[in-house]
Amino acid sequence: MGKVICVGLGPGDRELMSVKSDRLIRTARHVAYFRKEGRQGQARRIVEGMLPTDVTEHAMEYPVTTEIHFSDPEYNRLLSAFYDDWADKLCALTADEDVVVLCEGDPFFYGSFMHLYTRLKPRCDIDVIPAITGMSGCWTATGQPITWGDDVLTVCMATLPEDELTRRAKDSDALVFMKIGRNLPKVKRALEAAGKLQDAWLVERGTMPDQTVQKLTDVGDTVPYFSIAIVHGNGRRP
Amino acid sequence: MGKVICVGLGPGDRELMSVKSDRLIRTARHVAYFRKEGRQGQARRIVEGMLPTDVTEHAMEYPVTTEIHFSDPEYNRLLSAFYDDWADKLCALTADEDVVVLCEGDPFFYGSFMHLYTRLKPRCDIDVIPAITGMSGCWTATGQPITWGDDVLTVCMATLPEDELTRRAKDSDALVFMKIGRNLPKVKRALEAAGKLQDAWLVERGTMPDQTVQKLTDVGDTVPYFSIAIVHGNGRRP
Repeated sequence: MGKVICVGLGPGDRELMSVKSDRLIRTARHVAYFRKEGRQGQARRIVEGMLPTDVTEHAMEYPVTTEIHFSDPEYNRLLSAFYDDWADKLCALTADEDVVVLCEGDPFFYGSFMHLYTRLKPRCDIDVIPAITGMSGCWTATGQPITWGDDVLTVCMATLPEDELTRRAKDSDALVFMKIGRNLPKVKRALEAAGKLQDAWLVERGTMPDQTVQKLTDVGDTVPYFSIAIVHGNGRRP
Repeated sequence: MGKVICVGLGPGDRELMSVKSDRLIRTARHVAYFRKEGRQGQARRIVEGMLPTDVTEHAMEYPVTTEIHFSDPEYNRLLSAFYDDWADKLCALTADEDVVVLCEGDPFFYGSFMHLYTRLKPRCDIDVIPAITGMSGCWTATGQPITWGDDVLTVCMATLPEDELTRRAKDSDALVFMKIGRNLPKVKRALEAAGKLQDAWLVERGTMPDQTVQKLTDVGDTVPYFSIAIVHGNGRRP
């Protein structure tokens, strides 16, 4: 009997993958990964050149990404059926062999694999290998520690309402706002209202070859969905 | 000219170290690490068996840990002199060779190396290699995702006042309280007041061979300083 092994890939630089994830990928018989239809997908791109030549690949293509808003019941129905279907397929594969599922970042931290995990857990053996989060890669890229001493860190999605982002920004020492993309103007207004816009950084593609690190006030109008805004804590230090 | 390279060691399981940290440690000429006087130290223990036979080791022994409270000016004076002194020594070593500094967890996330980093940065080349945080190791150990959808995650030190911990616990979807140790009764009261005690977990030595994962309500009176309390988010999911 095999099992499903979800390996966290970390923030993007392949050398930042764990020794364990690296080994599991290089010896995999089956690998599965999420991607948008018709794209190579970021997870698959990270492992390019690492897979054994005789591996069987399973591209799990999202039936919908941003074409329908996540508040639409149809979005939920389509994605739910998609996860059900892939849970069945992966579970069937474990009758014979292990299946390695690739997951960007840290699987249990806002990762898509969690939706397969809850479906698979009652039915087959699963291992989850943690990884460096995208946000760790990004705050390291800024060259400044994110938290000191007793600093409180708050992590929010930039998809939240503006007043909620403002309230969170006022009430935390260190801040990470994820999934910036088209929420950029809202994030800027929220940080301005909290008096923290001048201290904020934006990191795109952290740890990858085309990484950029900018003051948020210097950023143009368009940033990737997976870019991250950061305000460093400034707590106690000897 | 050499440089100082701070390698994050991750949560404790050596296989969860990054490929890059692993390689830097196995080829180091000089390694430095913090420890309490007279102890081997956790960072050094993690790399046992990995160091080259001809490596030069530099044990940076804290002049004080918990004997003086951190609010005492003497604590600050002693630690500040300690970091100044080691910044001088490490910087001098880089005249000839690279120096690898070992750091548990992720260096820029509440790590002691940050105090050397700020002193070294104006004076010599420094690289910081991010790593899996202790908290990632711990939430993975619980076998449940920490954050879903739009969940807000708050990370706090259990050293904060009780009313502050209660307020933070009420106001966040997912919670990580670090440095539990003798703050355990306070943490339990704060989570009880926030209505979250029944949902809380305590992880000791996450990812290490003697790891324990318990409901916080089942925990005895004594837990290690570096244990972590976790409340999982419960956000949107298809």
